[in-house]
Amino acid sequence: MNEDAFISHLKKCFKTPKGMIGIGDDCAVIPFKKGISLLMTTDALVEGIHFLRHEISPFELGYKLVAVNVSDIAAMGGKPQYSFFTISLPKSISASWLDEMVRGIAYAQKKWGIFLLGGDTVGSQRDIFLNMTLMGSAKKVLCRNTAQSGDVLCVTGRLGDAGGGLKLLQEGKRIKGNRLIEAHFLPEPHLEEGLWLVKQKGIHAMMDISDGLNCDLKRMLIASNCGAIIDVDSIHISKELYAVCQKKKWDAIEIALTGGEDYCLLVAISEINFKKIQTNFSKQFGRPLFPIGYMNAESGKIQYRKENKKLRLSLRDFSHWD
Amino acid sequence: MNEDAFISHLKKCFKTPKGMIGIGDDCAVIPFKKGISLLMTTDALVEGIHFLRHEISPFELGYKLVAVNVSDIAAMGGKPQYSFFTISLPKSISASWLDEMVRGIAYAQKKWGIFLLGGDTVGSQRDIFLNMTLMGSAKKVLCRNTAQSGDVLCVTGRLGDAGGGLKLLQEGKRIKGNRLIEAHFLPEPHLEEGLWLVKQKGIHAMMDISDGLNCDLKRMLIASNCGAIIDVDSIHISKELYAVCQKKKWDAIEIALTGGEDYCLLVAISEINFKKIQTNFSKQFGRPLFPIGYMNAESGKIQYRKENKKLRLSLRDFSHWD
Repeated sequence: MNEDAFISHLKKCFKTPKGMIGIGDDCAVIPFKKGISLLMTTDALVEGIHFLRHEISPFELGYKLVAVNVSDIAAMGGKPQYSFFTISLPKSISASWLDEMVRGIAYAQKKWGIFLLGGDTVGSQRDIFLNMTLMGSAKKVLCRNTAQSGDVLCVTGRLGDAGGGLKLLQEGKRIKGNRLIEAHFLPEPHLEEGLWLVKQKGIHAMMDISDGLNCDLKRMLIASNCGAIIDVDSIHISKELYAVCQKKKWDAIEIALTGGEDYCLLVAISEINFKKIQTNFSKQFGRPLFPIGYMNAESGKIQYRKENKKLRLSLRDFSHWD
Repeated sequence: MNEDAFISHLKKCFKTPKGMIGIGDDCAVIPFKKGISLLMTTDALVEGIHFLRHEISPFELGYKLVAVNVSDIAAMGGKPQYSFFTISLPKSISASWLDEMVRGIAYAQKKWGIFLLGGDTVGSQRDIFLNMTLMGSAKKVLCRNTAQSGDVLCVTGRLGDAGGGLKLLQEGKRIKGNRLIEAHFLPEPHLEEGLWLVKQKGIHAMMDISDGLNCDLKRMLIASNCGAIIDVDSIHISKELYAVCQKKKWDAIEIALTGGEDYCLLVAISEINFKKIQTNFSKQFGRPLFPIGYMNAESGKIQYRKENKKLRLSLRDFSHWD
């Protein structure tokens, strides 16, 4: 069973009460005070699956644990508030390693205005297991299942940097100061972007890109019962990724589409509102909102195009499940 | 660093906002609507630390994941409502194992009226990691740091059954239908007892006993700046535990004081209200509330007594941290 199939299975086993959003979106949504909803998300980092102990520093690991959860709150247009962590550590972990990890968590929590309110600290036989549950709030939320045929699909950042960084790491030793590797270790969730986008008129759907555009867009399409046409030339690749791909003979587009952990936002915007939102986004953030294609009515299918011709890509999605 | 020292360290690193309860009690407490607080707790079960894969059935494991979290909500006098789990599984786990584990979670959630609203499903290199965050609510909460010198200390159940079960398991093969082993695998949190106790006048403090009376009482004493005198003869041992201890020449009192995972409640009750509460508890639940001693002013110290004489015990506390 893959992760998506298992999540579908869980949705059948566990009913969600009326007026709430349960399993399947970036966060659960629970009505709070009048006009305000609670957002809840939980995300784990597991040794050997999400990171290798000798590669990532404990500070980066602590920071990343917070960042990946903040990205889920950002994806709904919310503001993070309170966190709860679980750390399961083998005896081989030193006190100074633990101190640095806590410092990474504290740094990230301060950066995004989060208070740690509780957790569980337990042993582990061999591997490090970290989990965070993050609570946030929002006046209005944006879901992934409300995109419409005809919407302009946009991303809030460049794609593939973190994926390129991971490929570099897989090749061997860590290169200090490399921007792609830093994108992998110290992701920057698009929290301000999410908070701004949720207030704009004409945004139909939003989610974060944590497992690569190809994988996450498919999730949006299935949830919204739409299809999408993506122009691969409109996907912005950073200079750094482009240079590495030229040198290593890697396919930059493939990395941009399947490399996970970019943590920018995927947004479906009503066509009539798109231009205004694009202009105002640039004014607000000093960098562009990237249109990458359109939604159509072909349920669940992504059609990649290049120079207006259909492109057949054989993509292998990034997964934290396998 | 042991678990309690690490939690103290975290309390210094992470400040709690005013009007909330953060790190250090069974749950975090966040003001919700007028007169209602949100309770949040998170607890993990880690392979090789909390369970052995070949001993516990996946159904029991799923059930226990919910039960240990429900116990934390019960310990504050709250009602559990919404859960979020993280499951990190190695590839060696079969689909039928996973199905049974989900069935255990679903069974427990239905039993205690909980809705699963989200989670994270990820891979693992070798070991199984399970985490649950449980949200509940309460009109009034009972904390562990408000016990007073002179209070009567009570427990809501017999002690040592789960610890005895664990010792039997450590000896070798699992004995089917053994009540002590069942107490270890299928704990019964005292949710109704907690909900009833929080409404009574004169209860000063409450917490659950998850790491053994000796360990958890010390936590209450340190938090409340009190000491305690415990009469070991007043600690009720089940017939089953007593019989096993006689046969195996185990010290039943030692198991009752240090065996973890009993998941009953430890309550500090004002002396003048105690008798009435004890009588009404028996009427309500058809079984006794067990007084086991008194709180005194000797900060952080437990004095064990037998036949009114001081008892020197050398106890090794149960720990999920080591």
